[in-house]
Amino acid sequence: MDAAREAHNREAFRQAVVNTLERRLFYIPSFKIYRGVAGLYDYGPPGCAVKANVLAFWRQHFVLEENMLEVDCPCVTPEVVLKASGHVDKFTDLMVKDEKTGNCYRADHLLKDFCKEKLEKEPNLSDEKKAEFRHVLAVLDDLSAEELGAKLKEYGIVAPDTKNPLSDPYPFNLMFQTSIGPSGTLPGYMRPETAQGIFVNFKDLYYYNGSKLPFAAAQIGQAFRNEISPRQGLLRVREFTLAEIEHFVDPEDKAHPKFSEVAKLEFLMFPREDQVSGRSARRIPIGEAVAQGIVNNETLGYFIGRVYLFLTYLGIDRDRLRFRQHLANEMAHYAADCWDAEIECSYGWIECVGIADRSAYDLRAHTDKSGVPLVAHEKLPEPREVEKLVIAPVKKELGLAFKGNQRMVVEALEAMAEKEALELKATLESKGEAEFHVCTLDRVVTIKSNMVTISKEIKKEHQKVFTPSVIEPSFGIGRIIYCLYEHSFYTRPSKDGDEQLNVFRFPPLVAPIKCTVFPLVQNQQYEEVAKNIARSLTAAGISYKIDITGTSIGKRYARTDELGVPFAITVDSTSSVTVRERDSKQQIRVNVDEVASVIKEVTEGQSTWADALWKYPTHSS
Amino acid sequence: MDAAREAHNREAFRQAVVNTLERRLFYIPSFKIYRGVAGLYDYGPPGCAVKANVLAFWRQHFVLEENMLEVDCPCVTPEVVLKASGHVDKFTDLMVKDEKTGNCYRADHLLKDFCKEKLEKEPNLSDEKKAEFRHVLAVLDDLSAEELGAKLKEYGIVAPDTKNPLSDPYPFNLMFQTSIGPSGTLPGYMRPETAQGIFVNFKDLYYYNGSKLPFAAAQIGQAFRNEISPRQGLLRVREFTLAEIEHFVDPEDKAHPKFSEVAKLEFLMFPREDQVSGRSARRIPIGEAVAQGIVNNETLGYFIGRVYLFLTYLGIDRDRLRFRQHLANEMAHYAADCWDAEIECSYGWIECVGIADRSAYDLRAHTDKSGVPLVAHEKLPEPREVEKLVIAPVKKELGLAFKGNQRMVVEALEAMAEKEALELKATLESKGEAEFHVCTLDRVVTIKSNMVTISKEIKKEHQKVFTPSVIEPSFGIGRIIYCLYEHSFYTRPSKDGDEQLNVFRFPPLVAPIKCTVFPLVQNQQYEEVAKNIARSLTAAGISYKIDITGTSIGKRYARTDELGVPFAITVDSTSSVTVRERDSKQQIRVNVDEVASVIKEVTEGQSTWADALWKYPTHSS
Repeated sequence: MDAAREAHNREAFRQAVVNTLERRLFYIPSFKIYRGVAGLYDYGPPGCAVKANVLAFWRQHFVLEENMLEVDCPCVTPEVVLKASGHVDKFTDLMVKDEKTGNCYRADHLLKDFCKEKLEKEPNLSDEKKAEFRHVLAVLDDLSAEELGAKLKEYGIVAPDTKNPLSDPYPFNLMFQTSIGPSGTLPGYMRPETAQGIFVNFKDLYYYNGSKLPFAAAQIGQAFRNEISPRQGLLRVREFTLAEIEHFVDPEDKAHPKFSEVAKLEFLMFPREDQVSGRSARRIPIGEAVAQGIVNNETLGYFIGRVYLFLTYLGIDRDRLRFRQHLANEMAHYAADCWDAEIECSYGWIECVGIADRSAYDLRAHTDKSGVPLVAHEKLPEPREVEKLVIAPVKKELGLAFKGNQRMVVEALEAMAEKEALELKATLESKGEAEFHVCTLDRVVTIKSNMVTISKEIKKEHQKVFTPSVIEPSFGIGRIIYCLYEHSFYTRPSKDGDEQLNVFRFPPLVAPIKCTVFPLVQNQQYEEVAKNIARSLTAAGISYKIDITGTSIGKRYARTDELGVPFAITVDSTSSVTVRERDSKQQIRVNVDEVASVIKEVTEGQSTWADALWKYPTHSS
Repeated sequence: MDAAREAHNREAFRQAVVNTLERRLFYIPSFKIYRGVAGLYDYGPPGCAVKANVLAFWRQHFVLEENMLEVDCPCVTPEVVLKASGHVDKFTDLMVKDEKTGNCYRADHLLKDFCKEKLEKEPNLSDEKKAEFRHVLAVLDDLSAEELGAKLKEYGIVAPDTKNPLSDPYPFNLMFQTSIGPSGTLPGYMRPETAQGIFVNFKDLYYYNGSKLPFAAAQIGQAFRNEISPRQGLLRVREFTLAEIEHFVDPEDKAHPKFSEVAKLEFLMFPREDQVSGRSARRIPIGEAVAQGIVNNETLGYFIGRVYLFLTYLGIDRDRLRFRQHLANEMAHYAADCWDAEIECSYGWIECVGIADRSAYDLRAHTDKSGVPLVAHEKLPEPREVEKLVIAPVKKELGLAFKGNQRMVVEALEAMAEKEALELKATLESKGEAEFHVCTLDRVVTIKSNMVTISKEIKKEHQKVFTPSVIEPSFGIGRIIYCLYEHSFYTRPSKDGDEQLNVFRFPPLVAPIKCTVFPLVQNQQYEEVAKNIARSLTAAGISYKIDITGTSIGKRYARTDELGVPFAITVDSTSSVTVRERDSKQQIRVNVDEVASVIKEVTEGQSTWADALWKYPTHSS
């Protein structure tokens, strides 16, 4: 299949999914009656339920399972915090303006669109030109403002809507700015990530954890990015839910006690080397990836494995999920290693979870800015002996030699780095004296061997003080949910074959509503039974939808298949009912009294649909 | 007990609660290492768990139980929405500035503090003065900027920190302002409530509900108020979680099908009349309150009952909870009725839930501003006959009489209101002609009886089109949680009697951690058993804390009583363990294999501690 055809199919598939999602209110463009705002979306009832389910499972799978310390910090953040983290200075995209209308564009988007269009729509392009455009696309993220501006000029790129000339690219900060309090003197921002709230609380959390490492803190909450021009629907939005984990660990010991539990998991990995040399992603057991040093350490590997389990339990297709290592130029200078969980959807491979070993960068940045040491203390099992350099100026001799300058000479001697001190010691031992430069006097003096003793001594240390490393898995919840929608969507013909019906194959864990209750025909007896079943479902904590309209049962099934409801209860007698599974359409008969507990078991995972088929009489549709 | 002593005791109690909460990280002043920001707080691990439990129960008790449509809208909101809702113009507090330093104060706070101080600290105040200050306190919320300014001047009130003179009071808008997108041309605000997101989606939600009324939509989310000077700790903050319900109902039928389920509930109510006449709150069954017209309608009454159940299930003391009706001057002009669930804590009676019948105000405001009709259509069971006025100008005669002005006269005739038309008809019938003012011509013309026929006709209407009324229960989650902390806190002597230990008597539903696991002594066998129990608790979805330190068991109990953990499992053999209940300190012996399911049952409400005491051997502490 050629690229154009493939692109067309992807578009058509996406349109079918998105139409269903919008029609059934999984999401709604926000403030629609006021013609909306780009990059802001509401979750309607089924979308909201899916999100609540994904977050509840996230809490179970990460927070509860690993005994993480969950926190909940405000979105409004004072400038000083985001100055320390680097966001005030560096959280920018390069923007160009239409010089006449003032319309704004992302500079890299315009260049990208131009190159892609050339490659896709001009079949007679020379090989040289093709290579050039491909190169531009490959290095797009690395271009400076000047380089981007030069390319835009070279290609004669103008404002897409008006064809007007464009300004030079300049950085635009992506944080929503505001002002805290009435005086206008305390600038603030809506947080661009939730992580900073955890870092600034490190000291208290460490204490709460009994002053022991490693431990992880977690936070779920809203984050904000004032995108220049949001595109790609639910994937690039101006407000979104993040779920972030900050796992604090001794930089000298990144082993993980539970690593063996995930070591045998095997999934698509795309190491840096393979990307650079043009190979494809390949299946590697995570244990092997760590053993071979492809993944930097066990803790990072453990989280990669847990993220894989999380995403596939939700219903993400394992064949369209890969872990891609950041290339050297993508990674922050301080990061030890970084992997993105990328999910393939109609927009391509999309970063949905970032898993980074950020070393001690964040805690150090806040230590420096706040003056509060964010460090861990580890009492050594027994005091350890460390060799320490001891420089002991002999003040009496120095006083005689340097008089009023004595203090400066003493300080300069004491401030010597190890290497310099050892060189001085060697010279004094061989020649009896040495030239020595005293910065504060701005001159060279002569030091004699009786003026200073330099020695190495063994000292005892009782505790180790250090800044912990941070390993951060960061989940874009909205992106995961959108990819899940695409991976769960399929169509199948209606019974009479004259239309295609939409289905979401959500696992019960994710499904917005766990079951429906349909009286087969409109009569009071059946409705009474349906209401009793509804009551028992509520008591069991199972969400359901009851539909007592006279619509045909087939239509009612189709309506709720489109919401991804896994089970339908049809009331077709007063003593027992039919339970139908969405994807197989298999049916079983269950007593009215039992049905709530059967649904509870198959939706909460205590038993499976296969068990139910075995246990209850089946029934063809 | 005199007022001063009582105030002192309240302060001391609050200090004990707040110290415990801060020390155990229920909450933390946000950005503490940067000296914090007034009115912003983090929830630490136990606070975050309590909040998650309260919200999960809210979803179960309201959303699931009533089949509400939950939505999730962004915090960032464009100006047009909040202009329509009235927030841009009216969501203000009156502020004064220190004329030298620029420090800002809430004008009413300064006046309130002044009057309270006079009343509390000047025992020799004349009765007249006492009455005056009491009156000011009573009408404080009703004072205009001018009246407040006059009072501040009259009493010579100056800036409390500097004693500098103050500016006149002026309104300060409490919304955090920002700008959406890069151009700076789209002003936005952080939403001050979640409700508007529901109103603007009314049309889609109504359709989703099968175009049927009544239905309720719900939203949980962050809201923001840029308070001038936040006080009262967790009660008045700049960012908070709201849980709001908007129940849409036919204004002509506010009956509720499930009202009978709550009608017999009896709790403290404080109707408007009783407040005005100086009586106290009294217990009234909600059914009677509705029957007597004290509460406006059944739906409002139903929600009051459900809110009562919600708060008392959480652990709010029913004797310190009352429903207070708004006085006429507190209520918005459009509201039909409004009740606040107020909880008494050390700060006094605090509004924690507002339950208002807001009539059609909000939907009409957005209909007007957006031009999109937010209305319901109800097909009448059979067409109904309505008498309609028909005004039929006779164009031929009017053309002859008025020539080029004919169109203006026709339009003026057709635009007549019913009363005017009937008067014209009467005059024409009695006198054959009538004077008639045509606005657009700015003159009076003579209309003859052959120029217009005015009649009443019977027409058939097939559907009723109307703007639904909104009944809105709105929950301040942070306030409820703070009051819950105060109502749950108590102290008791330690075993040896030499110190007072803190306990939170949270019900298992709310408790941040459901149980602890303590090996009695440090040995490998017991630790192994403890770890197995921990694994089975995780599998059962029960949060726990394991403590394998050698600290005495009494100290370990005390530490977790202070977190409100309801059950402690002490591993004192390899086959069975001791389970201890927090408040009674009663203990039972349970087999290792059974313990996770016993804890699950008593924490999730399938059985009670009393059942467990009956079923398992008890054990004295």
